[in-house]
Amino acid sequence: MKKLVNDVHEVVRESLEGFQLAHPDLIDVHFDPDYILRAQPKAEGKVALISGGGSGHEPLHGGFVGHGMLDAAVSGAVFTSPTPDPIEAATRAVDRGAGVLYIVKNYTGDVLNFETAAELCEMDDIEVRTVIVNDDVAVEDSLYTAGRRGVAGTMLVEKIAGGAAERGDNLDEVTRIANEVNDNMRSMGLALGPCTVPHAGKPSFDLGDTEVEMGIGIHGEPGYRRTEMKPADELTAELYEKVRADLPFAQGDRVIVLVNGMGATPISELYIVNRKVHELLKADGIIAERTLVGDYVTSLDMPGASLTLLRVNDEMLELFDAPALTAGYREGM
Amino acid sequence: MKKLVNDVHEVVRESLEGFQLAHPDLIDVHFDPDYILRAQPKAEGKVALISGGGSGHEPLHGGFVGHGMLDAAVSGAVFTSPTPDPIEAATRAVDRGAGVLYIVKNYTGDVLNFETAAELCEMDDIEVRTVIVNDDVAVEDSLYTAGRRGVAGTMLVEKIAGGAAERGDNLDEVTRIANEVNDNMRSMGLALGPCTVPHAGKPSFDLGDTEVEMGIGIHGEPGYRRTEMKPADELTAELYEKVRADLPFAQGDRVIVLVNGMGATPISELYIVNRKVHELLKADGIIAERTLVGDYVTSLDMPGASLTLLRVNDEMLELFDAPALTAGYREGM
Repeated sequence: MKKLVNDVHEVVRESLEGFQLAHPDLIDVHFDPDYILRAQPKAEGKVALISGGGSGHEPLHGGFVGHGMLDAAVSGAVFTSPTPDPIEAATRAVDRGAGVLYIVKNYTGDVLNFETAAELCEMDDIEVRTVIVNDDVAVEDSLYTAGRRGVAGTMLVEKIAGGAAERGDNLDEVTRIANEVNDNMRSMGLALGPCTVPHAGKPSFDLGDTEVEMGIGIHGEPGYRRTEMKPADELTAELYEKVRADLPFAQGDRVIVLVNGMGATPISELYIVNRKVHELLKADGIIAERTLVGDYVTSLDMPGASLTLLRVNDEMLELFDAPALTAGYREGM
Repeated sequence: MKKLVNDVHEVVRESLEGFQLAHPDLIDVHFDPDYILRAQPKAEGKVALISGGGSGHEPLHGGFVGHGMLDAAVSGAVFTSPTPDPIEAATRAVDRGAGVLYIVKNYTGDVLNFETAAELCEMDDIEVRTVIVNDDVAVEDSLYTAGRRGVAGTMLVEKIAGGAAERGDNLDEVTRIANEVNDNMRSMGLALGPCTVPHAGKPSFDLGDTEVEMGIGIHGEPGYRRTEMKPADELTAELYEKVRADLPFAQGDRVIVLVNGMGATPISELYIVNRKVHELLKADGIIAERTLVGDYVTSLDMPGASLTLLRVNDEMLELFDAPALTAGYREGM
């Protein structure tokens, strides 16, 4: 294993330290327990947002802490859920008297630990709601999941619900919008190779020299089939069709497109994927209102990509376009 | 070779098409000859900036076209200089009567072709100046270079000179500042593995399972030595010391730090590198005024990182902080 790490058991802490040093103006990392706060806390009376989960998906979630997105991110070890303690501590730190929304990807450990933290906080009259993100259409149930997995679309929930909280919507409203984003969003990914978890020291799965894993999970969980390597347009068409047919997205729908890199795929290749996605959307009469292309929700050093489509209305689009200032995403600030 | 491409001879065109579809509000891609313009042209009477070179370093250069940075980017085939034709055409398209500055990485083909384009434009009374970026301290001369190579620091020249042009500085001034950035900047990179050029179809060089190439070029050119894999802190210390000693940077200097990913390295590892860089700067009494961590100047799918230090004064810092709105970099907009 060749990685730019020191002690494999210290990668999360050391990475957080380097993250803090890069962005003292944006974030404030708390250690023991570990969580990331906005450097400029949100105003009193506004709803706070927290997300988290295992590390290894950067910039998610710490990279989306800041004005217009998250108030805190709580990350566990690589691909490992954070315990309730840091979630509880972060919740107490960010509550501004208007309640806290948890944005939780649908993995059993994450769901349980955020639930426990919510119960602990509610004993002290902090109102907590939770949206479970489960945008991955690839498989029902998985290695760490009952139901569908939460993947790259989580970033769009954080952006749009974050916009609602920042404009002053109450907890019911922010929760409604977060759920509406999840309900109208579908994703699927593919991997050209595995990732390597530092403390494991070896690739997370084996894939033949000419094989592609369709429907890959963001921790390297199996997809729904393996196929021989094909041109990007064919692989993209399969992602697109699975995603489109599931909601289903239909003629006249307006969407936000997210072509997400898994960590080791050049953005030039992601643009080739995006080109085909737009061609297919156009053929189906679906309107691409906004497009994001880049590494937003990664799987360490996995080569691959995912496609997310979110059907939007005017409100969601307005909140997506609202100002945001984070290490991983900026808009209008 | 597993890549998200179709025809290996069409990767640049298809990627540009997908880039255009992602960012219709920011950029305007012209084909045959290929160049990328700002969607909102700069005001009359302001100096225009053009950069370019081989493709494969995205987001450089097309990702830095927009308000406050470049007016045009001209990219050739992967790792191949653009011919004078598209450079000339782009120059005519962006000139607003105040002249054009070329920002050229020091590779023989790039230097020659930009020089030829400049001569063609100057026959028509478009005033053209050129800054040659040669920030890489690793080696003198190289596969495609006489003198030192231009690497990740190019992005900082584009940002700071772009700020000067946007505020209305004349061609002499913008050129002076661009040269001042180059003169005060040093970089060096390392690779944990090769990259694969699509039309070559195989890795650009061989590197043993436990070897690291110190001083790698951004096209996979050899560095100055190979070493056995070591902890990130030791590798970072070697990068840092070569970079620091070259200018040399000294106690009390103020710097912008750029920890750049080569394409396939997770940002979490780049933060571990950044952590060590800040520790070393602090020990040397050098002040990190700003820090960038991410993939800015890549080498396709190469795993690795580079470090750039730029000694700044108040003017450079103010221009670095000035608004910019591009696909690959945003500040204050």
